[in-house]
Amino acid sequence: MLTLYYASGTCALASLIALEESGLAFETRKLSFRDGEQRSPDYLKINPKGRVPALVTDRGVLTETPAILGFIAESAPAAKLAPLGDAFEMARLQSFNSYLCSTVHVNHAHRPRGSRWADEPAALEAMKAKVPQNMADCFALIEETMFKGPWVMGETYSLADPYLFVMTDWLPADGVDPARFAKVSDHHARMLQRPAVQRALAFDRG
Amino acid sequence: MLTLYYASGTCALASLIALEESGLAFETRKLSFRDGEQRSPDYLKINPKGRVPALVTDRGVLTETPAILGFIAESAPAAKLAPLGDAFEMARLQSFNSYLCSTVHVNHAHRPRGSRWADEPAALEAMKAKVPQNMADCFALIEETMFKGPWVMGETYSLADPYLFVMTDWLPADGVDPARFAKVSDHHARMLQRPAVQRALAFDRG
Ligand SMILES: N[C@@H](CCC(=O)N[C@@H](CS)C(=O)NCC(=O)O)C(=O)O
Ligand SMILES: N[C@@H](CCC(=O)N[C@@H](CS)C(=O)NCC(=O)O)C(=O)O
Repeated sequence: MLTLYYASGTCALASLIALEESGLAFETRKLSFRDGEQRSPDYLKINPKGRVPALVTDRGVLTETPAILGFIAESAPAAKLAPLGDAFEMARLQSFNSYLCSTVHVNHAHRPRGSRWADEPAALEAMKAKVPQNMADCFALIEETMFKGPWVMGETYSLADPYLFVMTDWLPADGVDPARFAKVSDHHARMLQRPAVQRALAFDRG
Repeated sequence: MLTLYYASGTCALASLIALEESGLAFETRKLSFRDGEQRSPDYLKINPKGRVPALVTDRGVLTETPAILGFIAESAPAAKLAPLGDAFEMARLQSFNSYLCSTVHVNHAHRPRGSRWADEPAALEAMKAKVPQNMADCFALIEETMFKGPWVMGETYSLADPYLFVMTDWLPADGVDPARFAKVSDHHARMLQRPAVQRALAFDRG
C-alpha cells in the first residue's frame, strides 16, 4: 500500500494526480499547514525535511516530487505515465521535472516562503517584488523551448503534465496572467477535463 | 558522441565526474562565465536557460544535473553507477539528487547569485547572511538522515556521490566548516582519491 502525505494548495497535488492516473492503490493523509503539522515530531519521523509530499511505500519513504513521480510511473507500467525503458526520453522527462522543482517552484516560493532565505522584512518584500517577473520568464521559456504539445513531452501524456499543471495553477497568485502563454493555458484547460485531475482537486479542496 | 558544456567551479563538475566514471566517450567545451559566454547567442541555442551543465547527445540536448546523471548511469550499465532496474532504489537516488538540486544548490546560489531573486543591494546582503545557516542545516539533515555510508546510497557507489562531493566542496566558501559533518567529510576525502575525480578536477582547474 502507498500512503501520500499531502497538504492543500501545495506541490503535493502533482503526486496526488499521478496516483489518481496510475490505478495504484493508495491512501492519503492531509496535514494542516495552518496548524504547523508539517513540523510535528510525528511527521518529522516520516519526512525530516518537514515538507510535503512524502510517499510511504513498503520499502521506505520517498520525498521530492520528481522522484515520487518517477516511482509512480515505474510502479504502474500499464498506465504509461512515462517513456519507460527509453533512457533519453526518461532523462528528458526528468529534466523538465527537475526544472520545475529547482527553478520554477523555487521562484514561486520566494513569495510565500521568502523567510527561508532572508530575515529582514524589507528583503522579503524585495523578493516578493521579483516573483511575477521570474515566474513569467520561466513560463516564457517553457512555452517557447520546452513544451512540445499537446502534452509537455509531445504526443503522449506523462507525469510532466500534472507537475506543469500545478505550477500553472499558481501563476495568478504569483501575479502572472496565464493567458500570456497560449500553449500552457490550453494545457491547463485540458488537464481540468481529466477525471484524475478532477478527483485530485476535489480532495485538495475538500 | 556526448559533449558536455562546462564551466569551472560550477555544479557541472558532478556531470563531468560522472562521465569520467562511466567509460563513455565524450568531449568537453569549457565556457568562460567571466566573459558571459553562458549568455552568448550560440550557447543559448544549445541551452536556452543560459546555464551549465548541458549534455549534447545524438538524440538532443539534456539539461539539469539530476537528469544528466540519470542518463549517464543508464547509458553505461557496465559501470554500475545507479541501481538500474530497481524502481524504489532509483527513486531514492533521484530523491537525493533532487534535494541537492532544488534545495542545497539553491541555498548556496543565494550567495553568488542573489540577484536572481531580488534587486536591492540590502536584500542581497540579507540573503548572503543566511547562507551559512541554511547550508549547515542542509548538511546536518544529509549527515543525520540521508547519508547511508560509506557511499550516499549505502554499500554501492552511485551518481549521488559526485553530486554530494560538489556541494560539500562549496561549504568553506559558503561559510561552513565541513569538519562539522564527519561522514560527509570522510566521503569528500575518499572521493578525492578516485581517479575519475582527479581527472575531472584537473580539467576544472586547468
Ligand atoms: N523539492 C520539494 C519541495 C517540497 C516543498 O517545498 N513543499 C512545500 C509545499 S509546496 C512545503 O511542504 N512547505 C512547508 C513548509 O515550508 O513549511 C519537492 O519538490 O517535493
Ligand atoms: N538546476 C540546474 C542549475 C544549473 C545552474 O544553475 N548552473 C549554474 C552554475 S552552478 C550556472 O550555469 N550559472 C550561470 C548563470 O547564472 O549565469 C542544474 O542542476 O543543472
